[in-house]
Amino acid sequence: MIRDAELRARAEVVIPGGMWGHMNAQALPPSYPQFFKQASGVLIKDVDGNEYIDFICGFGPMILGYNDAEVEVAFESQRARLDATNGPAEVMVELAELLVETIPAADWAMFSKNGTDATTACVTIARAQTKCRKILVAKGAYHGAAPWCTPRPDGTTAEDRAHLISYTFNDVASLAAVCAQVGDDLAGILVSAFRHDARHDQEMPTLEFANAARALADQNNAALILDDVRAGFRINIGGSWEPLGVRPDLSAWSKALGNGHAIAAVTGNNRFRDAAQRVFVTGSFWCGAASMAAALATVQKLKRIDAISQMVRLGDMLRTGLQAQANEIGIGLRQTGPVQLPIMLFDDDADFAKGNLFTTTALRHGVYLHPWHNMFLSAAHTEDHIATALIATKHGLEAVSQQFSQKS
Amino acid sequence: MIRDAELRARAEVVIPGGMWGHMNAQALPPSYPQFFKQASGVLIKDVDGNEYIDFICGFGPMILGYNDAEVEVAFESQRARLDATNGPAEVMVELAELLVETIPAADWAMFSKNGTDATTACVTIARAQTKCRKILVAKGAYHGAAPWCTPRPDGTTAEDRAHLISYTFNDVASLAAVCAQVGDDLAGILVSAFRHDARHDQEMPTLEFANAARALADQNNAALILDDVRAGFRINIGGSWEPLGVRPDLSAWSKALGNGHAIAAVTGNNRFRDAAQRVFVTGSFWCGAASMAAALATVQKLKRIDAISQMVRLGDMLRTGLQAQANEIGIGLRQTGPVQLPIMLFDDDADFAKGNLFTTTALRHGVYLHPWHNMFLSAAHTEDHIATALIATKHGLEAVSQQFSQKS
Repeated sequence: MIRDAELRARAEVVIPGGMWGHMNAQALPPSYPQFFKQASGVLIKDVDGNEYIDFICGFGPMILGYNDAEVEVAFESQRARLDATNGPAEVMVELAELLVETIPAADWAMFSKNGTDATTACVTIARAQTKCRKILVAKGAYHGAAPWCTPRPDGTTAEDRAHLISYTFNDVASLAAVCAQVGDDLAGILVSAFRHDARHDQEMPTLEFANAARALADQNNAALILDDVRAGFRINIGGSWEPLGVRPDLSAWSKALGNGHAIAAVTGNNRFRDAAQRVFVTGSFWCGAASMAAALATVQKLKRIDAISQMVRLGDMLRTGLQAQANEIGIGLRQTGPVQLPIMLFDDDADFAKGNLFTTTALRHGVYLHPWHNMFLSAAHTEDHIATALIATKHGLEAVSQQFSQKS
Repeated sequence: MIRDAELRARAEVVIPGGMWGHMNAQALPPSYPQFFKQASGVLIKDVDGNEYIDFICGFGPMILGYNDAEVEVAFESQRARLDATNGPAEVMVELAELLVETIPAADWAMFSKNGTDATTACVTIARAQTKCRKILVAKGAYHGAAPWCTPRPDGTTAEDRAHLISYTFNDVASLAAVCAQVGDDLAGILVSAFRHDARHDQEMPTLEFANAARALADQNNAALILDDVRAGFRINIGGSWEPLGVRPDLSAWSKALGNGHAIAAVTGNNRFRDAAQRVFVTGSFWCGAASMAAALATVQKLKRIDAISQMVRLGDMLRTGLQAQANEIGIGLRQTGPVQLPIMLFDDDADFAKGNLFTTTALRHGVYLHPWHNMFLSAAHTEDHIATALIATKHGLEAVSQQFSQKS
C-alpha cells in the first residue's frame, strides 16, 4: 500500500498523530488502509486501488449503498437550489413530518449535524423539562465524543460528569438502585438501542429491562432517552425499542438518517416539547437543506423497499454461514446482537490476535470487516456479496485455525 | 407571505416552537421570512418569491457567493467519487496542508462539523496539554451552543461552567485579575477575534489587550485560544489576530471555511500537538471528503482573488454611504467593528424599535439586513449591490426619522 503509506506520512506532519477518532486506522492491524478514493454501492476502494465489500458502511451512515441514485438526486436537486442560508427550506418541515409519521414515539423533531449534538440535546432537554440534573448511563456505553461522554478522559474535568451515574445494561436491580440513590434529582435514563460496546459481546435489551427503564422514568417524572444514533433505521423503522413496545420520551438519531450525508435529529413527545423549545441549541449548518433532502429520500426509500427485512435476511445468511464454518473448523466464535449490526469475537482472544488475523485475511480476500467493533449491513448488500464474504471468512477462519492450533 | 405562513403553521406542529436557534425568525420582526427556496450569488429568495440582496450570508458561511461554481465543482466531483466512508480521502491531507501553509500560527489541523465542535475541542486540548482546568472567557461572548457555552441556561447545570471564569474583553486589568485569581490551574484564555456580541457595539481588540492575553497565557503555560469561527477568513486569511502580530496556540474555525458546506477545523501549534493526539473527539461525518474539497476550493479562491480586500472595500463603501445618509438625516447611528462584518445600531433604541423599522423597510426594498446581530459581506457583493443597498437604507433611515421625530 504505497500510496496509503505516502498519505499517512504526509498526514503525520499536518494532523496530530496523522488521524483522530474512530476512523484512525492505527487502531486496526497495519494492513488496513487509512485512505480511500472511491465508494459505490457496497464497494469501497482504497487509494492503492484495492477494492473491498464493505461491512462497516462508514460505521453506520451508509444504509442504502454509497451514492444511492435516489438519495443523491434528492440531495443534488436541493443543493442546486438552496442549501445553507439565513433559514431553512420547506424540506425541513417535510422531514420533520415524515419522522413524526414514521416514529410512533415522536411528536416533534429537531435537526443537527452530529450524533453527539443529538445525544447532548436530549440530555439538555431532559434537564430543562424536569429541572433535575442526574442522568443515568450504562457502564461502558458510547454516547458521543463531547467532554460529558467521550470514552477517553484526556482534557475532560470531573465536573463534566458530575451528574452522570452509571448502571449496568440489562440489569434491572442496578438501574433501580441508582434511581433510588438519585432521589428526586433524576432528569433522565439514557439507554442505547442495545448494548453495542466495542470489544464486547453485544446484548439485546430484555423486555424486563426496557419495561423497568420506562417505569422508573415515569415514577420519577424523568425522561427515558433512547440513543438510537448507531442502531436507528436498522432495527425498526419506528425506533429500535418499538419491537419491545417501549417508547422513549426523547430519541437521538444520526448516522443512517441521510445515507452518508451529515445530519442528526432529536425526536420527542409532547411532554418535552416546551423544554425543547426553551433550550438554545444551534449550529451554522443545522438548517442545511441538501442533507435534509437526502434524509427525506433515505427514510422514504427505507420504508418503501422494506430495507430492514433485507438487512435481516442477509445478516442472518452471513451469521449462519459463518457459524457453520466456525463449527466445522472447530473454532470458538461468538456472534452477538442483531444480525444486521453484527460483531464477531473469538473465544480466548483477549488481545484480538485471532480477530486481527481473521479480519486481515478477509481483507486480503476483498472483504472489509472489523476485528472488535460492531459492523453494519445495508440494503445494498446482496446474496452474492454475502457469498463472497463467506469465502473470505472461510480463509480467515482457516488462517486462525492454522496459526493458533500450531501455537497451542 | 402566504407560503411562509403556511410553512410556519406546519412547522409549529412538528418542530418545537416551529424553529430553534439563531435562525428562528421569531427573533426578528414579523415581516422577515422564515423559509427560503433559492440562493445564488448574493441573492436569496424566500418561499413567497421575494428576492433580497443578502447581508447575512447564512450568518457567515457564505463568503464567495451562494453556489459558487468553483466550490461546487470541487464539492460535486469529490462527492461523486467518495464522501463519507470508513476513513478519509486524500483531500483531508491537502486541506490540512493548505491550512498549515495559510495560517502562520498553525502547525496542524483537525476537522469536524460545527463551530461548537471546534471551540469545545480547543478547550479540551488546552486542558489535556496543561493538565489544568480553568478557562477564561469574555463576559457575553458567544462560543457555541453546547452546555458549557450556550447563552441560555435552560437544561444546563452549574457544573457545566464550573471552570469558566469571565473577564471583560479589551480590559487588560480584568484579564490579569482573573489570571491571578486562578493561580496555577489555568488551562486557557479564550478570546473572540473581536467583540461581536449580539445587540452590542462591536469592538476590535486593542494591541495592548492582545499582547496581554498572549503574555498571560505564556506566563501561566496556558493556551491562548482564538475563536475565529465567526470572523475567520474575513479579517485576515492567516487568522484574525495576524494584523496584531499576536498568534494563538489553538484556533477554532468553521462558517466561511467551506463556503456553506458543513465543516469546522481546529488548528494549533506544536506545543499542543501531543494533546490534540490524545483527546478523543470524533463524529460520523467528520471525514466527509466532499465538504473538505469545498473548503480546499474556498480557501484557494479566497487567497487567489484577495477576497478580503474586496470585502473591505465594499464594506467601507456601505459604511461610509450609510453614515453620510444618517448624518444628513440627523439620526444617531453607530456602525462598529470591521466593515466586512458590520453591525448597525441606533442611538436611544434599547428595544430595537428603530432598528426593526430600519431593517424591515430595507427588507421591503429587497435588502436583507439584521437589526441587532453583526452582518457579513462576501466576495460576491459588488458595487451595484452596495448601491442598491444604500437606496434601501435611505428609505429605512427616512422611515425611522419620520416615525421617531413624530413621536418625540
